[in-house]
Order: sequence, then C-alpha cells, then structure tokens
Amino acid sequence: MSEQRALTDIDGGPVAIICGGGSLPLTVADTVRRNGRSVVLFPIHGWADPAAFAAYRHHWLHLGSAGRFCRLARMEGCRDVVMIGNAIRPAIRELRIDWLTLRLLPRAIRMFRGGDDKLLSGVARMMEEQGFRLIGAHEVAPEILVGEGPLGLIKPTEVHGQDIARGFELISAIAHFDVGQAAVIADDRVLAVEAAEGTDHMLDRIAALRAEGRIRIPDKTGVLVKSPKPTQDRRIDLPSLGPRTVEKAARAGLAGIAVAAGETVIAEPLRVAEAADRAGLFVVGRRRPGSAP
Amino acid sequence: MSEQRALTDIDGGPVAIICGGGSLPLTVADTVRRNGRSVVLFPIHGWADPAAFAAYRHHWLHLGSAGRFCRLARMEGCRDVVMIGNAIRPAIRELRIDWLTLRLLPRAIRMFRGGDDKLLSGVARMMEEQGFRLIGAHEVAPEILVGEGPLGLIKPTEVHGQDIARGFELISAIAHFDVGQAAVIADDRVLAVEAAEGTDHMLDRIAALRAEGRIRIPDKTGVLVKSPKPTQDRRIDLPSLGPRTVEKAARAGLAGIAVAAGETVIAEPLRVAEAADRAGLFVVGRRRPGSAP
Repeated sequence: MSEQRALTDIDGGPVAIICGGGSLPLTVADTVRRNGRSVVLFPIHGWADPAAFAAYRHHWLHLGSAGRFCRLARMEGCRDVVMIGNAIRPAIRELRIDWLTLRLLPRAIRMFRGGDDKLLSGVARMMEEQGFRLIGAHEVAPEILVGEGPLGLIKPTEVHGQDIARGFELISAIAHFDVGQAAVIADDRVLAVEAAEGTDHMLDRIAALRAEGRIRIPDKTGVLVKSPKPTQDRRIDLPSLGPRTVEKAARAGLAGIAVAAGETVIAEPLRVAEAADRAGLFVVGRRRPGSAP
Repeated sequence: MSEQRALTDIDGGPVAIICGGGSLPLTVADTVRRNGRSVVLFPIHGWADPAAFAAYRHHWLHLGSAGRFCRLARMEGCRDVVMIGNAIRPAIRELRIDWLTLRLLPRAIRMFRGGDDKLLSGVARMMEEQGFRLIGAHEVAPEILVGEGPLGLIKPTEVHGQDIARGFELISAIAHFDVGQAAVIADDRVLAVEAAEGTDHMLDRIAALRAEGRIRIPDKTGVLVKSPKPTQDRRIDLPSLGPRTVEKAARAGLAGIAVAAGETVIAEPLRVAEAADRAGLFVVGRRRPGSAP
C-alpha cells in the first residue's frame, strides 16, 4: 500500500520511454528534459531509427522482451514508464516472447482476444504488477498535446464544422466496439471509418476511391476527424498527428483535418502547420463534446 | 386518394425492373414471371450486360434519364417499379441529367448532400410523385431473400456466433450515420467497417493487411457480417450476397459470412453454397436482433 503511494508521486527517478517509430518519442524525450527530468530511452528494434538515439541514454529492446526491460529500467532507477511512437500499438500485438512474457502468457493470450483497448490496459496492469507506473507521454510533456484552434493559416467553414461534429459523434457511437479513432466525413456523408488499417491506409483508400471514380465529390471536400474513443486508455493510446497525415489528407482531396483538442498528440506542430498551409488544408483542434475542459 | 389506393394493389400491369449489373436483376425477372406477373426490364447502359436482355421485353436507359423511363414505363402500363442490381446505389449518385431530372434538380442537389439513405428515399419519393410505386424486389420475388441457417455444408461455431452478434450490434450502432452495411469481426476484434468503399473493397483490404503482416491472425479467422441498417429503405437497398462475396471472403482468410436472414438478397444460392463448400467457409443466415420474425 505504501509502495503504491510512493509510485503515484512524480518523484526523482528518470522517465523510461519505450520508443516506437517516428519523431514523437524524441520530441517527448526533449520536452521531458526541458521540464527538468532525466530520461532513459528504450527504442524497439525494427521500429525506432538507430541514428537518432546516440544523444540519449538508451537500451535497445526486442518486442516482447519484457524481462530485459524490467531489469534495465529498475537498474536505471526508473519508476515512471511512457510508451510512445508509431506502431507501438501494432508492435504490442506482435510481442516477441522472453521469460517474463512467457510466465504471463496465459493472460497475454486472453488479452489478445478482443480489441486494442483490452490489450493495452492489460499491458498497463502487467507493468504495474512489476512495480512500474505507466503514464501518458502528455503527463510528463503536456506541450505535445494539440490545443484549440487552427494550426495553420486556413480555418474550417461552418459546413466543415458540421462534418467535424458528425465525425466526433460517430467515433463516440462506436467507442465500445474498440474500433478506430478516425473517420472521414464529406458534406454529411461518411466516406470511411478506420478500424485495423490505421489512419494512413484509410486516407490512401479515399485517394484510390476518388481516382477510380467510386467517390465523386469536388476536390477539397471532406474532413478527416480524429478523436480518442471515450473509453480508451489515454496513457498509451492518444491519437497522433504529423506532417505525413497532412500530406495523405491532401492526396485524398480533403479540405482539412480536425482533431480532439487536449487529447491528440503532435510531434512537430510547426511542420504540420507548414504542410497544411502548403497543401491548402486546415488543421484544427476542436474540443470534443463531453471532454474535460 | 383513390388513385393512391389503386397503386397500392399489386394488380395486373407488368413490373418495371430498373436493372444494374450482375445476375440479380435477371433472377428477379425470372422469379416474378414464375410468380405469375409479366416484367419489362430497363437495363442501365454501362452497368447491365447487353447480351442478357434479348429474352426479355426491355428498354435501355441512361443514368438520369428519368423522363425517358417515366414515358416508357407508362406506355408499357407499369405502375410497380423495382430497382435492383450491382451499382444501383453508386449509379444513382452519378445520374446523368435529362429534362425531368433537370426540373427536379434543386431537390436532387439537396438529396446528394448526406448519405445514401437520404438519396434513395428521395428517389423513391420522386417516383411516387410521377405516379409509380417503388417496391422492393423481394416483395414480388420473396424467393431471393436468404433464410435462416447455413447455405452450404459448414456451420459457424459458438465463437463465430459471438462475432456475428457483435457485427450486428456494430452495424446497428452506426445506423443513424447512414454508413455501411457490413463489418469484419475476428475473435471479438473489429478489423474493418464498411463505408463508401463497399463490401468487395473492404474484403480486399483485409487480404492486403494480412499479406503485409499488419493483421496477424491465423487463416480462417474472422467473419464478414452484413446487415441492413435498421433505418434504411428496404425497397432499394437490401444488402446482397453472391459467389464473388464468398471468393473475396476466402481470399481475405475469413472463416465465414453471416447475413441478416429475411433481409438479404441472394442471386444464386446454389452457386453461393458451392463456392462456400469449395473454399471451406460457412455462409449463414441469422435473424438480426430486433428484426421482424
């Protein structure tokens, strides 16, 4: 009980950051250091880019090497653990198994039945049983959250606002099915709902359907809406946004992107804003109905 | 008022069948004739196969030639109109415009904002204002509906039954967003939700995600669930099933297909059952919760 209480304090020790792909893990590491805490990075083989980690204290992990992680993180004096970066979710799905994971296997198999939410909350519980505290990247680096309002120069119109509201509603309606965090709405019509394919693939699909003439709507129509499911574990699983999302949305012929303000993670806000302005798209943070102010 | 009443009787005149692609329109025509009514077919250029229509009284239509249709159908003494076949829904979206359509244009434009349901019920209303009665193909050819139980030799297991129930639930939860009629569920996890892309494209996506290793589940896992949205206009828009759906589901590595019994249209039940047995898949009709018995 007393140990539990100690772990809930954000005290001295460095933050352990388990790093998937993309630039987000390094943005988080830099922000945490700027905020006055040290970090130890645990990049994952096959996802994280080796060159990027030279400047940080780090240990490489294989997927599923839970035992190695626990040993090294304890040695480094880490209690707080952040998991962040591209493919962290699919990566967890493809765990390579070491001894600790093996011991936990029956439960892991149960976790793998069902959607990502179950899987992620299972991982969080297992971490906690090993004496760590899984926290959201935004808890130690709040600067990575998208705020309210447009990121670039272009603003959504009132019609876009209706599509955005509809997108938030749709994502909320399917929340308890543990499905995707994104949808594309164009003039009140739902063009795509994200599930296992992920946002990038969904946007590629819109581009392809347009190219094949299966969706016939004017260029610069439609909004990509991203929002966390109200039920999901925000420590691991906030939706994220980067310059590539903007490029894909532009290629899909959309008018813009709306994300849930205060609940979406962004690695490079300036590059996102530049990409949006260049492509003629809006990127906007909007308070999701029902979200904490 | 009295004219309205006359139109609700299934009386003498031949049934006008506006024909999209695939074999379903001809199955409907044959079934209606077997049931004792004559038919006049209106195949749509670009969708229906010319060779198939020689044996039937027929007139070709261009998309959007509402005026030509009304004139010819009246001349033929038709009051009841059926619209059936592949791409009838997308086809309606791409109306080519003739004089009648032009007169109705402001309303047509309003209809095009929003999902397919709005569009289809708008078309039905316009037909009725022209003195026709739009009816479902199953109202004059009930034999085309899938009944309860498996179509081939293979039956779903209890686990499949859970995925089927989840699929029906999901489709019902998104009903009022006027989105797709299908989803793929595997071991309690939602792999895909259909929107503008259609069922075939959704199944191709599952196959691709599997080939790329982005979905890692054993072969013969997952169920395609198809169900009409509780809100949709059943006269034009019942989900349909054919041998190609079975082939695509097999290529996507699924265990089977479940459709809403009594609410799904099937063109060639024998060929579907054969295709299912050959591919080792189940195809089953299940009563959707809340559907009429």
